[in-house]
Amino acid sequence: MSKVIAEISMSLDGCVAGPDPSMEEPLGVGGEQVHEWVVATSSWRDAHGQQGGEATPESDMLAEVNDGIGVTIMGRKMFSGGSGPWEDDTNADGWWGPEPPFRHPVFVLTHHERETTLMGETTFTFVTDGIESALEQARAAAGDSNIRVAGGAEAIQQYLAAGLVDELLLHTAPVFLGGGRRLFDGAAADLTGKFEGTRIVDSTTGVIHASYKVKDA
Amino acid sequence: MSKVIAEISMSLDGCVAGPDPSMEEPLGVGGEQVHEWVVATSSWRDAHGQQGGEATPESDMLAEVNDGIGVTIMGRKMFSGGSGPWEDDTNADGWWGPEPPFRHPVFVLTHHERETTLMGETTFTFVTDGIESALEQARAAAGDSNIRVAGGAEAIQQYLAAGLVDELLLHTAPVFLGGGRRLFDGAAADLTGKFEGTRIVDSTTGVIHASYKVKDA
Repeated sequence: MSKVIAEISMSLDGCVAGPDPSMEEPLGVGGEQVHEWVVATSSWRDAHGQQGGEATPESDMLAEVNDGIGVTIMGRKMFSGGSGPWEDDTNADGWWGPEPPFRHPVFVLTHHERETTLMGETTFTFVTDGIESALEQARAAAGDSNIRVAGGAEAIQQYLAAGLVDELLLHTAPVFLGGGRRLFDGAAADLTGKFEGTRIVDSTTGVIHASYKVKDA
Repeated sequence: MSKVIAEISMSLDGCVAGPDPSMEEPLGVGGEQVHEWVVATSSWRDAHGQQGGEATPESDMLAEVNDGIGVTIMGRKMFSGGSGPWEDDTNADGWWGPEPPFRHPVFVLTHHERETTLMGETTFTFVTDGIESALEQARAAAGDSNIRVAGGAEAIQQYLAAGLVDELLLHTAPVFLGGGRRLFDGAAADLTGKFEGTRIVDSTTGVIHASYKVKDA
């Protein structure tokens, strides 16, 4: 059976994006630093059609996780490129370029109806009737593959709060953002006792890769 | 040369104590959960004169860290037992009991003058003239041993902000407190680039033990 995996990178002070997003820094001041480890892996570069990168244990881990994923769910801001003044442009084409790296169905949580769009090998379907509906559509599309809730913070918080996440995969980078968007903003107490740590992947970058599985009821 | 190690346990949502501290839960609602891993180790039990406990890799890690420590610095609330209605009782004897586990000099950051107190094999000295003064006294007492800044959050934040920490040792427990006292409360951006992750200790409890060292200037 398909698992729902919430996966996101964050800073040591618990932020997934920095403060004051702008055109120059759509992930907020310093926000790109939490993703530097990903961009350095050979598996990410492969997926983006780029050469090079490092074949580290964390690159293998990333490839392994990605191989199991058949569908991605994301918030609209993640689709359209972070928070910022442009986020009201509900028809923005996203920042994933002509060949987004997903190459599987992506469901975008949004309040704005929009036609399903094919970009390269990735289909983006826009879901306006909530997280349960998006997950239902994701399950239908995923078959036995896993479903990734890829962010942002709000999308992950909503799925966690609804008890719909089977596994939480957190990549904690050794940087500090000092504000911005927190992954856990104070509404997480209900999660206590629901997850257990199960796996920590070796890292060559000082990033901690920790997987938490929901406990059997 | 003696190192300054800031060491603290926190929740997955970045809190070192839970919300609403009370006599029953001086570390706030659920706050004790972040310390359960410590209490379960044989090395902690040894230090507290108790039998049993588990001789795990993290117990060994704890023993190794403790062996190197010659002096501890803590905030007054950590001395007197968490936040709460009693924290205005500046003469409270602390909650460490007649035989505190430190068995080395402890310097307590406080605004209230108080005589140095010997409890069991631990001397508590109360420092009212700031973190630099406490560190200076700690260095004099420590010799070549390391100095631990043991918490709470405020004490660690102050030493980090002043650039006086050589190593940050964070124990992140797989629990959520959903509020309470955050270790990094938004003032941490200045720390970016100053620390690098160097060591992660195996854990049998789902707790992540990550050590960050200050980079050479």
